Amino acid sequence: MKIGIIGGTGDIGQGLALRISDKHEIILGSRDPAKAVEAAESIIATLKKRGTVSSCRGTSNEEACKAADLIIISLPFQHVASTLAGIDPKYIAGKIVISPVNPMIRKDGFFYNNPPEEGSAALAIRKMLPESAKLVTAFNNIAARKWTILDEVLDYTVAVCGDDAEAKKTVIKLVRETSQLYGLDAGPLAVSGIVESITPLAINIAQINGLKDLGVYIK
Amino acid sequence: MKIGIIGGTGDIGQGLALRISDKHEIILGSRDPAKAVEAAESIIATLKKRGTVSSCRGTSNEEACKAADLIIISLPFQHVASTLAGIDPKYIAGKIVISPVNPMIRKDGFFYNNPPEEGSAALAIRKMLPESAKLVTAFNNIAARKWTILDEVLDYTVAVCGDDAEAKKTVIKLVRETSQLYGLDAGPLAVSGIVESITPLAINIAQINGLKDLGVYIK
Repeated sequence: MKIGIIGGTGDIGQGLALRISDKHEIILGSRDPAKAVEAAESIIATLKKRGTVSSCRGTSNEEACKAADLIIISLPFQHVASTLAGIDPKYIAGKIVISPVNPMIRKDGFFYNNPPEEGSAALAIRKMLPESAKLVTAFNNIAARKWTILDEVLDYTVAVCGDDAEAKKTVIKLVRETSQLYGLDAGPLAVSGIVESITPLAINIAQINGLKDLGVYIK
Repeated sequence: MKIGIIGGTGDIGQGLALRISDKHEIILGSRDPAKAVEAAESIIATLKKRGTVSSCRGTSNEEACKAADLIIISLPFQHVASTLAGIDPKYIAGKIVISPVNPMIRKDGFFYNNPPEEGSAALAIRKMLPESAKLVTAFNNIAARKWTILDEVLDYTVAVCGDDAEAKKTVIKLVRETSQLYGLDAGPLAVSGIVESITPLAINIAQINGLKDLGVYIK
């Protein structure tokens, strides 16, 4: 599968490229294509040292969408609308789009879920995409730092929400191919706000209790 | 410690009585005191067979509050206001009160978090209690059925929220004395809505994926 990542130089883009570019073609998109090219080259070099042949390249966000079968939006929520506005919708139409986006604010030292009026980042992003795109949430609750450390096994539960059953199946399969992540169907997009809100909770728990890079297991 | 449980014939009351009435005095309250007396006797008999000496008795909800150092509200959210209205506030004043309450609705086959306008059940319950009561949330995300099966080890993460640091410490200690539950400070009462919302998520995941009694680990 060809996976295009908008904001691909971030943790999720680099993490996924490191972990699944031997099985899938990863196209890292960026506002600054040169940065994406550099990130992709660094990932290929890292994997080569380990004897892994990988397929990863860097380009613009629009080119990443154009080339992809499946698109991942790896951006802070406040940059999603403006970034999507710069991409021709025909490159997104009909494709599966994954949102790992968690809308958060910090207040008095604690992180809070800060969803838009739609109820979740995913429900707001849904409105920004062409009707035929199939939005699914996944990878929401994985500690950022762990993504890019290849020796860290990721064995968390990934709650996957969406309204298109086939798209959800494809995403759950992709999740389960990534390290040891365990993707589970968590229901319709309407419940995605719960999954998004677990990230600020985990960050607060880590911060208050002097713990690090907490992940979530539902089992 | 003397622990009074409002709605004590439910899963949490019976579960806690089974698991910590050897260390603490458990007072099960009920609308129907005879039912609470019966439940307490059954628990004592069960523990006696295992050679455990326990302290557990049943009474009314008001008497349970009166006798307690710490009060647990084990009721569906929609019954909390009317039940508290029937208890003299002087029996609650100054005490630690634990809310394990999760406000939920079912719609189109899925469970949703359904918080009151305050943002969470706990924030609404806070307003129903005397000013001097110290409200803490705990035990929110434990599968109901597992509570009462004494051979089931409970080793989940219990996210504890509250605005009184000392009360929170006491509750975290109590949580950690209960089976192998791992209590962690999760921040102020203002974030309790996130913890409450994880319960419908876990129920949906269990239901959709044919799993049972799912619990949450944040680690």
